[in-house]
Amino acid sequence: MRVAIVQLNPRFGDSVGNTRKAIELMHRHQADLYVLPELFHSGYAFACRDEVWALSEAIPEGPVSSQLAAAARKLEAIIIAGIAERSGDVIFNSAALFDPTGWIGTYRKIHLFDREKEWFSPGDRPFQIWSAGGIRVGAMICFDWIFPEAARSLALQGAQILCHPANLVLPYCQQAMITRCLENGVFALTANRTGGENRGGQNLSFTGKSQITGPRGEILFRAPATAVGVYSVDIDPQDALKKQIAPHNRLLEDRRPDLYTLSVP
Amino acid sequence: MRVAIVQLNPRFGDSVGNTRKAIELMHRHQADLYVLPELFHSGYAFACRDEVWALSEAIPEGPVSSQLAAAARKLEAIIIAGIAERSGDVIFNSAALFDPTGWIGTYRKIHLFDREKEWFSPGDRPFQIWSAGGIRVGAMICFDWIFPEAARSLALQGAQILCHPANLVLPYCQQAMITRCLENGVFALTANRTGGENRGGQNLSFTGKSQITGPRGEILFRAPATAVGVYSVDIDPQDALKKQIAPHNRLLEDRRPDLYTLSVP
Repeated sequence: MRVAIVQLNPRFGDSVGNTRKAIELMHRHQADLYVLPELFHSGYAFACRDEVWALSEAIPEGPVSSQLAAAARKLEAIIIAGIAERSGDVIFNSAALFDPTGWIGTYRKIHLFDREKEWFSPGDRPFQIWSAGGIRVGAMICFDWIFPEAARSLALQGAQILCHPANLVLPYCQQAMITRCLENGVFALTANRTGGENRGGQNLSFTGKSQITGPRGEILFRAPATAVGVYSVDIDPQDALKKQIAPHNRLLEDRRPDLYTLSVP
Repeated sequence: MRVAIVQLNPRFGDSVGNTRKAIELMHRHQADLYVLPELFHSGYAFACRDEVWALSEAIPEGPVSSQLAAAARKLEAIIIAGIAERSGDVIFNSAALFDPTGWIGTYRKIHLFDREKEWFSPGDRPFQIWSAGGIRVGAMICFDWIFPEAARSLALQGAQILCHPANLVLPYCQQAMITRCLENGVFALTANRTGGENRGGQNLSFTGKSQITGPRGEILFRAPATAVGVYSVDIDPQDALKKQIAPHNRLLEDRRPDLYTLSVP
């Protein structure tokens, strides 16, 4: 199975152009699964909530979703992409999942980063996984990486591949994904954006270095910091079913939930 | 506050000699808190349970514990050390905590590694923290590192410093402790052993590289792979109270436990 990360440098506010560019890039590079960055169509450094609202759309009815669904059909592939999701009168920072049959599901970002809290509502549904192309995939978005409970929740549900759209500005995530994959025995596809945005009182540099990480924490691929492109690796998703880390140890079965602290006492 | 890791190469079965050596080393290097490796007094590659039993002791009545309690009093310091703990007719792979007033508490390793399951009973009490020298410290032992729930349980209880006696044979832990500290905003003192043991059907090499890690994942000190010695760093434990990772984000308060999966469905 060929899995790909699409590293982009979206033009702020140009939802049509950014979507066209992403789909063109995917058509030039064949894969079975593509992960696009968080908010790949809209840009990130919003000046006010009205800007987000104008760029947001219903999933799967909206124009970005519709084009991604069509692309997944043509490419005969799975696509997961970060989309500003309009739902009623709220907006979620979401990742939508498409396969050749159409829209499969949507993950709404649970752990919002910094000023995202001003524009978006936090995810209102538990972490969940989907079956796509015979593989169990889970989605987490950007800052979710710092909470071990995100990847753990997906792994406990049986995820083989963590699809991880991102707009990373802190320097830590790529290295931490090694630990996330190792502790859960799963693959992760971190599709980050590159470039910068200086607007709305925010001057942000995105770190690129999109990364494909293996179930023993191997860095299977790490993109350059500033390039735009599609990067792929051939993997065997069955490797994520091997949870045995030592002759007498299995990563998930050896957990002792009865002895853990789950909240601040 | 000066915190120290004691990297040792114990001689198998020589509990008396190993304990004397460790205490001599601590007396030559002043610190406020010392962490010794897992099973620092006994060695690790047991051939049978009887060997472990013979080397185990009640805590705090046993000879190793008594000498460590005396050392903590003389050094006016906190000492945490890995001890084979005899309790009734079972044996735990434990870490005992001493301060100048004597024995404070014992952590019994919850996640046993590989053949340890043949000799030891798994920890039967939840992760917990102790107050020592005005600082809240938690203990985890070696393989506990791969379960994010270990460090998380201690951090949620308020631990500022994770004391982490180890006998590491896998190559992953030192790097993963960067993530453990970063995701919880805590210090960690990983005191590993060095050298090797080829006995009891086991041929083990221990990785050394004992490490002091800071609350933003900084490697404050990493020891050589093979040296024996005491290594210390001056830290401000109050830095572990700063959980703000971005203007609008705090590591523990931003958790969403209601949306996490806690066990295999």
